[in-house]
Amino acid sequence: MSDGADGMPIAGVRLAAAAAGIRYRDRDDLVLMDCGQRARIAAVFTRNAFCAAPVHVAREHLAAGSPRYLLINAGNANAGTGEAGMRAARASCELAAAQLGVTATDVLPFSTGVIGEDLPLEPFSQALPELTAGLREDGWSRAAQAIMTTDTVPKLVSRSADVDGATIKVTGMAKGAGMICPNMATLLAFIVTDAEVAAGPLQALLEQAVAPSFNSITVDGDTSTNDACVLVASGTGVAVVGDDAHGEAGKVLRRLVDEVCMALASDLIRDAEGATKLVTIAVADAASADEARQVAYTVAHSPLVKTALFASDPNWGRILVAVGRAGVDELSIDAVEIWLDDVCIVRAGGRDPAYTESAGQRVMARAEITVRILLGRGDACARVLTCDLSYDYVRINAEYRS
Amino acid sequence: MSDGADGMPIAGVRLAAAAAGIRYRDRDDLVLMDCGQRARIAAVFTRNAFCAAPVHVAREHLAAGSPRYLLINAGNANAGTGEAGMRAARASCELAAAQLGVTATDVLPFSTGVIGEDLPLEPFSQALPELTAGLREDGWSRAAQAIMTTDTVPKLVSRSADVDGATIKVTGMAKGAGMICPNMATLLAFIVTDAEVAAGPLQALLEQAVAPSFNSITVDGDTSTNDACVLVASGTGVAVVGDDAHGEAGKVLRRLVDEVCMALASDLIRDAEGATKLVTIAVADAASADEARQVAYTVAHSPLVKTALFASDPNWGRILVAVGRAGVDELSIDAVEIWLDDVCIVRAGGRDPAYTESAGQRVMARAEITVRILLGRGDACARVLTCDLSYDYVRINAEYRS
Repeated sequence: MSDGADGMPIAGVRLAAAAAGIRYRDRDDLVLMDCGQRARIAAVFTRNAFCAAPVHVAREHLAAGSPRYLLINAGNANAGTGEAGMRAARASCELAAAQLGVTATDVLPFSTGVIGEDLPLEPFSQALPELTAGLREDGWSRAAQAIMTTDTVPKLVSRSADVDGATIKVTGMAKGAGMICPNMATLLAFIVTDAEVAAGPLQALLEQAVAPSFNSITVDGDTSTNDACVLVASGTGVAVVGDDAHGEAGKVLRRLVDEVCMALASDLIRDAEGATKLVTIAVADAASADEARQVAYTVAHSPLVKTALFASDPNWGRILVAVGRAGVDELSIDAVEIWLDDVCIVRAGGRDPAYTESAGQRVMARAEITVRILLGRGDACARVLTCDLSYDYVRINAEYRS
Repeated sequence: MSDGADGMPIAGVRLAAAAAGIRYRDRDDLVLMDCGQRARIAAVFTRNAFCAAPVHVAREHLAAGSPRYLLINAGNANAGTGEAGMRAARASCELAAAQLGVTATDVLPFSTGVIGEDLPLEPFSQALPELTAGLREDGWSRAAQAIMTTDTVPKLVSRSADVDGATIKVTGMAKGAGMICPNMATLLAFIVTDAEVAAGPLQALLEQAVAPSFNSITVDGDTSTNDACVLVASGTGVAVVGDDAHGEAGKVLRRLVDEVCMALASDLIRDAEGATKLVTIAVADAASADEARQVAYTVAHSPLVKTALFASDPNWGRILVAVGRAGVDELSIDAVEIWLDDVCIVRAGGRDPAYTESAGQRVMARAEITVRILLGRGDACARVLTCDLSYDYVRINAEYRS
């Protein structure tokens, strides 16, 4: 079951958003989420060596105990800010903790926005009373709006399913439209279930869901300093504990979390900076999964492939060029096939004899396209979601200070 | 000594260009070069697995004997064309050989232009008599024009120096504005000296000259299927043979060839598709040369860095993001420094306390910028030349069928 755009509430989980003025004026830019007393929280973070101060602090607080609150700002990344940035990230948690009557390690900080500017604390002091008073279970829609930066639409997805006479619910929100090539997780994504899951299985559930979704999308190959993906089990619903993670409820929960992650990841690419097309690069018959991913990402990152997609030009030579430079050892080009949806364009190292420009043109005009690349070397495969490269990508990134 | 834009003639080397109508109308698109009876030719080619038919045939003919003629077309890449493409490449050499009264293996074919379309032979038959009759030593300027595709200006560079009472001359031409991230050589470059050099030392000279020049530039990370760089020693001038490759004449020749390659490589980037800035990414204090190149290319390929450069925005956070995701093991961010020309922007993992936005802005407004990245891990370094990413790059590649 899938519900509307407002985000299905999760019992015991409350959210609030406020216009704190961290960077933007007249729009919400700060979110507080209370995951509830019984919550377990799993998280994965960016592998960028320059990871942001809030990423360090969130890791510390996760290690220190059982955090309950998430504090998310969308104005300032607090990255590249050195020791001052670490102090500011900790102080923001302390301000929230004081307001909520808990300790600072109960709060996980998340930031997205401009890099290299000091995070001001005044907006936190100002907004926290309003945020604390405003926490509500139906706060998802406003929160998903508040965490946006260059996003043009909020990304909010819910799924639910019945199992053993009860219902498992999963609601997730994400943001991010550029600087997207997650390596462990994507910009910011928060997925919440009402199921009761122990910490270990919850982390495994998240890591498995992230691999084919947030970790298989790319806009521009730039892995952010602030990527974080969080999975919260509020513990107010069906118990999925211990071995039951492999039982019926565990299977259903896994399917729901996978679906929510895939849907959010697709929504991120649909709304990628300047994107006009959603493109799946599906590589099969590779010698290894690494090789398949390497080819898929090389094609997905090629500016020439991306501009041809923007132009709806069946310029398949550029796909072939990217496959050829992907660094696959001893690639036999005679064994390679390339397809645009159901149209075979390359076979035996050259253009398929049956290929026609009009057939290629018909596929390229579509808003969603799958480029299938068969390497003829083995059984491994990989799938990467990406988008085209348009004038608007240049405009947005020439104008916006990330 | 450096001369004007017309290309200093090399004794015994004659060139002709003609409008063969391979793709373009009313402009030259086919070049014939006669390197002379005593010439030695060294070449390096693309490492793209899908290398074009003329690359295969040129390799065969170099292995088979001592080629003397170069046949270069700028309308059709003859890549991704399978067996038919191989036959067409061989046939083009046969047509030239018949006209010139030599054998086909005396001719090396080079192609650049649209990928995946069959190479027509009729234009060769038509134009070869005119080309053969038109060969002349001062044909460089017209030839450099004729090999252009999306280039907006021809790239033609000469250098000469006196040694032991004689003069060594080197003239080179190149073309290429996009699909440029050479891996062994760049799109098409032809460098000719009048010195007499044996085959082995000539190939070594070329490979050494190509590494810091054509193999250290990138426009968009896309390695072409047709890259080729050729060094011709016409043997009409100073003898630089055997051990003398390490003597005075050998040193002078090496310096001249290096200078011509570096100048041509810079010219290619200056005229890169949509480029408004010439940017040097200089990485130093790396643990290894590979690591230094990896960081330099990651920064040079980042669409976010490139759009910030286009906007003249000192958005140094994006440089830091790219360094952080370059895959350097255990990078200590506290040891990293980043400079824009003479302005230090990052030190000890954060913004340099002395950095000001106006100082950064002053550098970013320049047409030529060096981004220096010190990793603090060792003694290795690397230098890559690149350009910014502008609206025009998208326009050119959305409109042009490569």
